[in-house]
Amino acid sequence: MKRIALLGSTGSIGTQALQVVDSFPELFRVHSLSAHRQAAKLARQARHFLPAVVAISDESCYNELKAELSGLGIKILAGPDSLRELAADQETDIVLNSLVGFAGLAATLAALSAGNTLALANKESLVAGGHLAMRQAAEAGVNILPVDSEHSAIFQCIQGQQLDAVEKIVLTASGGPFFGRNLAFLQTVTPQDALKHPNWVMGAKITIDSATMMNKGLEVIEARWLFGLPYEKIDVVVHRESIVHSLVVYRDGAVLAQLGTPDMRVPIQYALTYPERLLGHAPRVCWNTLSPLNFAPPDKSNFPCLPLAYLAGAIGGSMPCVLNAANEEAVRLFLGGKASFLDIPRIIERVMNKHKVVTEPDFDTLHDVDKEARLLSQEYAKMKG
Amino acid sequence: MKRIALLGSTGSIGTQALQVVDSFPELFRVHSLSAHRQAAKLARQARHFLPAVVAISDESCYNELKAELSGLGIKILAGPDSLRELAADQETDIVLNSLVGFAGLAATLAALSAGNTLALANKESLVAGGHLAMRQAAEAGVNILPVDSEHSAIFQCIQGQQLDAVEKIVLTASGGPFFGRNLAFLQTVTPQDALKHPNWVMGAKITIDSATMMNKGLEVIEARWLFGLPYEKIDVVVHRESIVHSLVVYRDGAVLAQLGTPDMRVPIQYALTYPERLLGHAPRVCWNTLSPLNFAPPDKSNFPCLPLAYLAGAIGGSMPCVLNAANEEAVRLFLGGKASFLDIPRIIERVMNKHKVVTEPDFDTLHDVDKEARLLSQEYAKMKG
Repeated sequence: MKRIALLGSTGSIGTQALQVVDSFPELFRVHSLSAHRQAAKLARQARHFLPAVVAISDESCYNELKAELSGLGIKILAGPDSLRELAADQETDIVLNSLVGFAGLAATLAALSAGNTLALANKESLVAGGHLAMRQAAEAGVNILPVDSEHSAIFQCIQGQQLDAVEKIVLTASGGPFFGRNLAFLQTVTPQDALKHPNWVMGAKITIDSATMMNKGLEVIEARWLFGLPYEKIDVVVHRESIVHSLVVYRDGAVLAQLGTPDMRVPIQYALTYPERLLGHAPRVCWNTLSPLNFAPPDKSNFPCLPLAYLAGAIGGSMPCVLNAANEEAVRLFLGGKASFLDIPRIIERVMNKHKVVTEPDFDTLHDVDKEARLLSQEYAKMKG
Repeated sequence: MKRIALLGSTGSIGTQALQVVDSFPELFRVHSLSAHRQAAKLARQARHFLPAVVAISDESCYNELKAELSGLGIKILAGPDSLRELAADQETDIVLNSLVGFAGLAATLAALSAGNTLALANKESLVAGGHLAMRQAAEAGVNILPVDSEHSAIFQCIQGQQLDAVEKIVLTASGGPFFGRNLAFLQTVTPQDALKHPNWVMGAKITIDSATMMNKGLEVIEARWLFGLPYEKIDVVVHRESIVHSLVVYRDGAVLAQLGTPDMRVPIQYALTYPERLLGHAPRVCWNTLSPLNFAPPDKSNFPCLPLAYLAGAIGGSMPCVLNAANEEAVRLFLGGKASFLDIPRIIERVMNKHKVVTEPDFDTLHDVDKEARLLSQEYAKMKG
């Protein structure tokens, strides 16, 4: 019986994770659930799974949640620190961190330092604090199991293989809704346009990141930490069909790839049942009727977020944290109608240019750097043009 | 230092294997080489690699070989039994069996019963005598390492994975030079046409097998033995570009595939260096310029060799040996202008229909069954139409 802490249970990954958990009642027990603000949805989940603890990070929703769960004997926590408590709980075997953004880093570090296995969907954790998380995981001797489909693909393709024989990993990118579009078009893009992803149904933040290709940039940095590879060994290729989830090129010339229909339940389940593979219900690829699989280089000039991420990664230290913070803020401003689609990379680049890099930043430094980059992003968004 | 016996060193696999061996002089020593008739080529190879022993299976070439190698202190054997001697040599660590046809079975069994690791390119061994070879390998506790690109792909995709979690394996087929052609066209096909393979440069027998799709049929039976899977779990899909070398579908919905440019040195090297991967010189796939990858169902009605192979496999016992023998003979007759392209499946089907199945045949029985099926094939070829 694996006891699971599910952070971010009302989001896209969280709800799919609960589907997976629900199909193996003899295998998993939901020990805790958390949400940011969706108290009613969290309460519904809690009534079904009867966890020992639930947490709502926005304290203003505490009373609603408490009323919904009265009489069930479920412990209820509130406030942002409660996530750390859930992550570090000694009665938990595996923490699925599907929080969104930099806010996930504290929970990542808490889970690892408590010696809990971490199933990680919150890529921003590793982008901002990969050096801290990997050190923590090594010290505690626990695994970080990737949940992102690309990193799960790479992780699956290196099982039973020699890591030092990896010549290159190639992350596939759908290219998002605007692949092939020119700047004139991109200038006119609305949040509604950008929220339509061709293949994957995901949360708003990651869908916008996918449209700007920052998502792939963040994944490049995430891969650098997860697999301990230098950036020269991490490539990106656009693959519109999202059937090949990523590839590993070995030095003998062999390439291993993980494929499948675009269904997040597969990587979620693999992380939760690892190293076992159990029956899954994702639709299978029908090879006899499969459309051609296409590959193309990413357009780095119209989608500068990807090269910005490589740049931030190469600079290292606190710079990826700045990249991430500026991006989170720029996406928020774009979704709120306060920045255009093309402002997103512009804001990020300016904030990066302004930043004085701190090498080996600790958590508190990252916290300050993150805050500062957000304020600066807001400033730059106001004085745009 | 791995000491290698290379059976069939002058063929396509053999010469490519020697290229691989030559690039790791500190790793491999060629202990023995064999050829069927190409004495001059064998002698050239022997002068370069200086094996302890060479064998020529056609005794009439013995004197030529002896003259070519005089004074080098290389032991020279002749005659078909000499291959068994090389395979069973205790001073050999790994036997690469790249013989063509049923003739390879004796060497396969000799290698395994002597406790030598077997790198197997001779698929007919397993088609005809898979039950004997797998039993022998299990008793001796040695590995059979696939050299066929498809089986190597599957083998690579199950490393570090649970075999009982395999839902299906999918062998990819190039479809050969006549994919998409109708019967009217296939009626007119000459040996010259059939010897032009779109992607792979191979020996004559396997190239014709590829054109009839019998090659894929033989591979289905080979896979059944190598991976211990029932035929319902072995599928075939046509993939014209020969970039995806085969796929494994796991029960969680994840698919692992091995890809690469069509270059036999990759699977040959993997078998020879297994479980390690060393630097290889095959051209890499360029993802940015890769043509679309297409998948289509095999045409079982115009290419009946594939369903015939499934049928023979399902019947089991001596039937796959008959399928193979009739095919070898029909291909020989086709190449000699004594049977048409469409006669190949017709002959095989008639010989199969005539055969009384022996369950669990031993080697001598297979030997007789093979001989009889060949004679019958010749008869049927004469009374065609």
